[in-house]
Amino acid sequence: MKLSKKALVTGAAGFLGSHLCRRLLADGYEVTALDNLFTGTKANIYDLFGNPKFSFVLHDITQPFWGQFDEIYNLACPASPIHYQKNPVETTKSSVLGIMNVLDLALKTKAMVLHTSTSEIYGDPLVHPQVEGYWGNVNTIGIRSCYDEGKRVAETLCADYHREYGVDVRMVRIFNTYGPNMHPKDGRVISNFIMQALANADITLFGDGSQTRSFQYCDDLIEAFRRYMGLDRVKIDSFMAEHGLGAAVLNTGNPGEYTIRELAEETLRQIPESKSKLVFEPLPKDDPRRRKPDITLAKALLGWEPKVPLKEGLARTIEYFRSLVASSKA
Amino acid sequence: MKLSKKALVTGAAGFLGSHLCRRLLADGYEVTALDNLFTGTKANIYDLFGNPKFSFVLHDITQPFWGQFDEIYNLACPASPIHYQKNPVETTKSSVLGIMNVLDLALKTKAMVLHTSTSEIYGDPLVHPQVEGYWGNVNTIGIRSCYDEGKRVAETLCADYHREYGVDVRMVRIFNTYGPNMHPKDGRVISNFIMQALANADITLFGDGSQTRSFQYCDDLIEAFRRYMGLDRVKIDSFMAEHGLGAAVLNTGNPGEYTIRELAEETLRQIPESKSKLVFEPLPKDDPRRRKPDITLAKALLGWEPKVPLKEGLARTIEYFRSLVASSKA
Repeated sequence: MKLSKKALVTGAAGFLGSHLCRRLLADGYEVTALDNLFTGTKANIYDLFGNPKFSFVLHDITQPFWGQFDEIYNLACPASPIHYQKNPVETTKSSVLGIMNVLDLALKTKAMVLHTSTSEIYGDPLVHPQVEGYWGNVNTIGIRSCYDEGKRVAETLCADYHREYGVDVRMVRIFNTYGPNMHPKDGRVISNFIMQALANADITLFGDGSQTRSFQYCDDLIEAFRRYMGLDRVKIDSFMAEHGLGAAVLNTGNPGEYTIRELAEETLRQIPESKSKLVFEPLPKDDPRRRKPDITLAKALLGWEPKVPLKEGLARTIEYFRSLVASSKA
Repeated sequence: MKLSKKALVTGAAGFLGSHLCRRLLADGYEVTALDNLFTGTKANIYDLFGNPKFSFVLHDITQPFWGQFDEIYNLACPASPIHYQKNPVETTKSSVLGIMNVLDLALKTKAMVLHTSTSEIYGDPLVHPQVEGYWGNVNTIGIRSCYDEGKRVAETLCADYHREYGVDVRMVRIFNTYGPNMHPKDGRVISNFIMQALANADITLFGDGSQTRSFQYCDDLIEAFRRYMGLDRVKIDSFMAEHGLGAAVLNTGNPGEYTIRELAEETLRQIPESKSKLVFEPLPKDDPRRRKPDITLAKALLGWEPKVPLKEGLARTIEYFRSLVASSKA
């Protein structure tokens, strides 16, 4: 009998963690799922609790965790401004102490690591679209810095654990991603619009709604994780060196652009019973940052690109939020 | 009898820490000096060991430290590339875990904190001279990142401990500083030139030596520390808000510029017995970063500016290195 590979997922009860756990189980892994349940919720993974290959451990990754795994997926960190600004110091600690604990575990047990970084490390980018070689434009002392700078130094630690100790860590910089299991109150535009439409509340657009955003469906991202972890390390290292990168880091996102107005209109089209109206307000001074990934490297290295069209991903996401609203009314 | 104020200095056996300990003792403080002696050396503070107001504790600030102090000066971190690249992971940890331990101590004991940040947080700056509002241009995954990114997220933690928990922490971004007690092999241009001149070795200039650098004498910097810590917090906060800064951070450096050739020539003038010659080599591809501080804010807030001319500071530094060389030959 072939033994299953063992995976550890931190942040397993969060939006992306829950999808990853499902995918790893489908791929035949034994999965240990860590979460402190600060922003994640057991509801996202409750259906997995009966699976003998799945274990949930309530654990905060700022504290060391020990165990023998083939692969570690480090997803733990509050990721939406509404959440991470609630406790900025703990946000930084979950990034920084979290990755230290993961890397120390990997070092001692020779586990591979996939670390989820973020497009936020580019800050307010001065280069469009963003390539992996761009260094970013981030304020060290602002109210978003707890997330941005925590994630930046986590990358540094990954790069140095690889260079110094040979830990096989692979980083992805995740751009705006959506799908079922998103937190309904995470303050992001897709969850906001759907929840407003389902509640018959007005949908607020700033300016004329012509500013564009990129949206990646969660399954596309998880597919990139799995392909990346399946690659030979030597191949990755020579690829990164060829492209002038000092560590294994890939942008993962959907470069397709939609205007905010198109998103709102498509949302209302898919929720025809909604009485919500579009209302327009002046652009705020700190208009949300615009980012668009350059995914040339991920395409070349992983043979990957996003496949799920916004229309279809939105439909699945709306279905999820419908069931959430229905069960909260039940 | 009036009780002395108590100060804790981390990195106390290093170049700047040793000067600060002396100054605090002269100002009437009881001083607790922490150092792990990784780059610092007891020789820098050995003359203080007989002073009843001085205590040395061999301690690594990546581990918690407890005690009751009025003021904490956080200087612990390897600061020259030769040192910090020897152990990049520990360099990041000394910045990040170090400031966490300092801030947690300050939070529980209501101590004031002076945190030493660095001009390195500006990276390869795209703005000259650098003002505090500039966000910097730093690579997250390069071989200098362990220092730069560790120092950046330390600033973030300082800003958030202040905003969230009211910890009174004041940050300085230190530009190129020199003086007695510098490590003779730290690889910086002033210690290099003096040590080469004293050893009758050729002094290497790159290009025609016309590239400029700024040099701050250590006593000037320590004076800035002391003035900053003497200020009323409310005054600092309103000053920073007026200048659009989200936290208390000041550049401290000497904006006067000298060419590398002028520095080499002045060094040889002050070491007339040296048989060293200037030799010229082509500019390396990664020419060292040039930075020049804008100290408008420090001038306005502290009524401070650097006073020690390069000629005089250099004389004191040469005297120190002469004694070091003499004692190593004795």
